[in-house]
Amino acid sequence: MFGSGAARTRLAPEIERLGARRVLLVASDRDTARVRALVDPFAGQVAAVFTAVREHVPLATAEAARAAAAEADADVVLSIGGGSTIGAAKAVALTARIPVVAVPTTYSGSEVTPVWGLTVDGRKTTGVDPAVLPQVVVYDPELTASLPRELAVASGFNALAHGVEAFWASGRNPVSTAVAEDGIAAIVVGLRKDDPVALLRGAWLTASAFAATGSGLHHKLCHVLGGTYDLPHARTHAVVLPHVLAFNAPGAPDAVVRVARALGVDDPVRGLRELADELGVPRGLRELGLREEQIDEVAALTEPAVPEDNPVPADAIALRRLVRAAWGGEWK
Amino acid sequence: MFGSGAARTRLAPEIERLGARRVLLVASDRDTARVRALVDPFAGQVAAVFTAVREHVPLATAEAARAAAAEADADVVLSIGGGSTIGAAKAVALTARIPVVAVPTTYSGSEVTPVWGLTVDGRKTTGVDPAVLPQVVVYDPELTASLPRELAVASGFNALAHGVEAFWASGRNPVSTAVAEDGIAAIVVGLRKDDPVALLRGAWLTASAFAATGSGLHHKLCHVLGGTYDLPHARTHAVVLPHVLAFNAPGAPDAVVRVARALGVDDPVRGLRELADELGVPRGLRELGLREEQIDEVAALTEPAVPEDNPVPADAIALRRLVRAAWGGEWK
Repeated sequence: MFGSGAARTRLAPEIERLGARRVLLVASDRDTARVRALVDPFAGQVAAVFTAVREHVPLATAEAARAAAAEADADVVLSIGGGSTIGAAKAVALTARIPVVAVPTTYSGSEVTPVWGLTVDGRKTTGVDPAVLPQVVVYDPELTASLPRELAVASGFNALAHGVEAFWASGRNPVSTAVAEDGIAAIVVGLRKDDPVALLRGAWLTASAFAATGSGLHHKLCHVLGGTYDLPHARTHAVVLPHVLAFNAPGAPDAVVRVARALGVDDPVRGLRELADELGVPRGLRELGLREEQIDEVAALTEPAVPEDNPVPADAIALRRLVRAAWGGEWK
Repeated sequence: MFGSGAARTRLAPEIERLGARRVLLVASDRDTARVRALVDPFAGQVAAVFTAVREHVPLATAEAARAAAAEADADVVLSIGGGSTIGAAKAVALTARIPVVAVPTTYSGSEVTPVWGLTVDGRKTTGVDPAVLPQVVVYDPELTASLPRELAVASGFNALAHGVEAFWASGRNPVSTAVAEDGIAAIVVGLRKDDPVALLRGAWLTASAFAATGSGLHHKLCHVLGGTYDLPHARTHAVVLPHVLAFNAPGAPDAVVRVARALGVDDPVRGLRELADELGVPRGLRELGLREEQIDEVAALTEPAVPEDNPVPADAIALRRLVRAAWGGEWK
């Protein structure tokens, strides 16, 4: 469901409808007061609260959340938060096989995908399991409206990346392509006008498309950067996206035409760079803490994960070129 | 699956994959030579052929097709043809509960919807049953390329109507809206350039959107015109669509903006009329054989079927005005 105020009004009836008696609430501890207000109408059914979420779901985080679910004998896991929060909730559902209810507070989109992620020994692994796909998602733009502007921009670019990647990922099809373009157009409006309704609607659409297509070069690279180098998730996507689009554009006419149309420009790579600049997105991974001597390792770790049908060949040399460009952040 | 030549190459493996041993082939008798060539690779599994298809699936047609399936002990019904053909195949599946395989030869879109239709005593009734949704659809633009231009245009407008109606039908949602717009844009390109690939791709998309949203005023009215007055299906949709869009436009901003964008014009009603005129679509139902004295009856039969959330009120008086406009065919 989608609507301003929906988290306040629709969550209790949905918990009721699922017959949940022992809810494990997963939420970041940054949001305590707001989260408490949202769960107040069904506080009696909240059996436990887990707040020790961390980006990229380290195994220890997953195990702690699972222990909390087991101890509470939870029958539903309710996530109120961004991508890291839903990631912890999915880690619980993956083993406990209980339904997930998601209330997103960012544009991460994870709430509409069956993809889970875990970081073990500095390597992020992902998998697909229908059990982790939330059974109920409550989209409430009132919750994302309070995101600090810089986080909203980074998260919005993360959502853009879902849509752009959907144009060339292996599972692309005419439906996912149409949905991705419409979502990108909404996100662009949302970013330009600082409009949480447009951003959340667009994030929903691009993540829905991405859920159907699976990930490609952009997400494989970002997973390495996040899982192995612990770079911040959303901002990494924001920095990398214009570089991957520039890299793939020569072989991806659908992405070129549709990103350009959504941005209202002729040259989508330039348009995306200008949008990023306007919104203060860092240009290079070095600004996020990646060191120059790590470039070759990033490329080497990414190479085996890149789909064979990436629109342009992504061999070791090409990937080093891409990672170096994304590190330096200079527009050509 | 979708591709030039796909009907020649992909049908036999799909029949094999379904484990079909006794196929009931449903096809119009206009297409005998072509259909025979397509089924030749698995001719040994074709247990019976039914060719007596009729528009709007009169009950007698459904019963004859069902008898053919029973007599042949069919385990799959294969439709090669347009909307009337798939309609007969769906009538079989509705009672025999055997899978449908569809090879569309027009832009009817019926192959991606779980909607069946039957005409009993001059009234067309429709229903929804997942059993009639084809399990396999083979889209092959080589098959639609041979449609006479006038039929291609009428069928293309019928496909356009699926997309336009999807903007305001009760089940509309952001995904169906995005898919409908992309489909409409492809159909417009296909109609203007006489391009069967774009038309078939667009017809697939708009019908997919329509399958999710359900029907609204346009289709309720066209069902009355087809079922009770036996007007030709696709051409009726082509004539009626600009009139219904003009009628609903004041309350349907999404339709207005998105149809205009797909047509590349400012005024979607005028743009659709101009497209219809360019392509030689008749302007009024009187050209299809509806008599002036039938207008009030058409409106009265339509009224109870119109969804309550139609974007503008569609009471008896308003509907008479709409039907009269569609009958006379004069642009205001």
